[in-house]
Amino acid sequence: MENKITSLFKIKYPIIQGGMVWCSGWRLVSAVSNAGGLGLLGAGSMYPEVLREHIIKTKQATDKPFGVNVPLLYPDIDALMKIIVDEEIKIVFTSAGNPKTWTNFLHDKGITVAHVVSSSKFAKKCEDAGVDAVVAEGFEAGGHNGREETTTLTLIPHVRNAISLPLIAAGGIATGNAMLAAITLGADGVQIGTRFAMSAESSASNEFKNLCCSLNEGDTMLCLKKISPTRMIKNNFYNLIEQAEARGATADELKEILGRARSKKGIFEGDMTDGELEIGQIASFVKKISTVHEIIDEIVNEFNGTLKNISGIKL
Amino acid sequence: MENKITSLFKIKYPIIQGGMVWCSGWRLVSAVSNAGGLGLLGAGSMYPEVLREHIIKTKQATDKPFGVNVPLLYPDIDALMKIIVDEEIKIVFTSAGNPKTWTNFLHDKGITVAHVVSSSKFAKKCEDAGVDAVVAEGFEAGGHNGREETTTLTLIPHVRNAISLPLIAAGGIATGNAMLAAITLGADGVQIGTRFAMSAESSASNEFKNLCCSLNEGDTMLCLKKISPTRMIKNNFYNLIEQAEARGATADELKEILGRARSKKGIFEGDMTDGELEIGQIASFVKKISTVHEIIDEIVNEFNGTLKNISGIKL
Repeated sequence: MENKITSLFKIKYPIIQGGMVWCSGWRLVSAVSNAGGLGLLGAGSMYPEVLREHIIKTKQATDKPFGVNVPLLYPDIDALMKIIVDEEIKIVFTSAGNPKTWTNFLHDKGITVAHVVSSSKFAKKCEDAGVDAVVAEGFEAGGHNGREETTTLTLIPHVRNAISLPLIAAGGIATGNAMLAAITLGADGVQIGTRFAMSAESSASNEFKNLCCSLNEGDTMLCLKKISPTRMIKNNFYNLIEQAEARGATADELKEILGRARSKKGIFEGDMTDGELEIGQIASFVKKISTVHEIIDEIVNEFNGTLKNISGIKL
Repeated sequence: MENKITSLFKIKYPIIQGGMVWCSGWRLVSAVSNAGGLGLLGAGSMYPEVLREHIIKTKQATDKPFGVNVPLLYPDIDALMKIIVDEEIKIVFTSAGNPKTWTNFLHDKGITVAHVVSSSKFAKKCEDAGVDAVVAEGFEAGGHNGREETTTLTLIPHVRNAISLPLIAAGGIATGNAMLAAITLGADGVQIGTRFAMSAESSASNEFKNLCCSLNEGDTMLCLKKISPTRMIKNNFYNLIEQAEARGATADELKEILGRARSKKGIFEGDMTDGELEIGQIASFVKKISTVHEIIDEIVNEFNGTLKNISGIKL
């Protein structure tokens, strides 16, 4: 398959690995790129010098294209961008901010830029800002999420109508069938987070991956809507948040309960009780830890098999 | 196309019209059935004798199969079921209750039974109860909704894995592309609510249909989670609910704000300020009022066209 996404990033499959905090180090990124997808380092949970280390290690582990995901709210973003340029990164996915702020700077250095949005309104802003591709992420995605609560099934057709840029669907996609559904809705490729967060090569703790494998439908929930809507697993920490929200807690009270470094404590350090366990709704569908190679193989085979099965249908 | 759904209901297309309150009278139902789908009268907003009247009129307007949607929480349900049997209805969709309660009774009268669920756990209960088909409805759907907040993209594969019954996907489906996505995910057919609620033949008020045509992404929201999660348009009434919920209002306080007959006031009588305006998230994608015939034609053509376009893809 050759399309707008595979051509833009010079990859085999239009499968992007979401650059997730505490999951997306050099092992995951190089494995995804080596398997024909696009790996993205998750700079959101790295000090600038830690990012440099991961870039260097990724280059040693793969000669295929890879990129860096940068949340634009990152506190020391100038230092981070300097390292990205110094280390000659060719692909940057930005999120959580205005696509205008950094796109020209990155383009001037020859870097391809994609930006993550949760509405067609912001997709149009991406087009105006000159970004090269848009990731449209639905309500079912893990971690930080849009206020509109638009699901992937609703969002993708809206964004497809709004812009002509290459479009990557995200949120709720963990299988070849879901990837095919995304293509059907008008996407050119998919970004997969949860499935790769639960892979053998993810830097998340085993406690986190094992808990994810045991989830049922309804075991993640979007909360913290008065601060920044976030999807997480319903554990003890979530219960505190949920009780506070039910009694009408203010944003300040919620920030106090949230505290600092909760997602590191949970995802990376393995505290399943008091950590903030960010993961997508589709985690309940993934029942085992697989290698990246196995995951991409399964997705590609399922995609091709289902498309062949439905090709004969005519209404 | 012939499949489990078209065979079960003896219809041309596996397209079911959701039996929605205040929208689904004889005009809409007969139009959908005449166009090759399955129309469902929405008994939830009809007194028993009103339902009888609509059944009689539907029979006069079509000789194709049609059915009745019965929310099992209906107060005078025995009277309703008696009319369904007396009038020789052959298809009943039940929702909002235990599928065991009425399935045997209906089967004894030769009636085909489908039940609406929002999780694979309840889909299994349907299979145990002996129902003939399951409707799995995601978070993006309008009106009353599951507590798990599972989106259609996540829900359908879960339910497909859990049961072998014919499966109808619902929530967020208004186009041929979305219908194809649902089939890709393992559904045998689709239930479409919002698009038909906004059709020329729907009994909703023009004020309601016009407002739906003007919605943007994020203009509906799931609320009333302390009573029964409900998706509605953000109008003045929604704002009262939202402010009450933000300050931690109890279920009793919310019930007082809700009062009685709010959805009739809004959807049927056209009070866009103080009515409860139940509609699905995908309303923002539908920009004009069309006839049922036009809607089904568009869906069928888009489904066939997109499937043809993607058939050549191989990863």
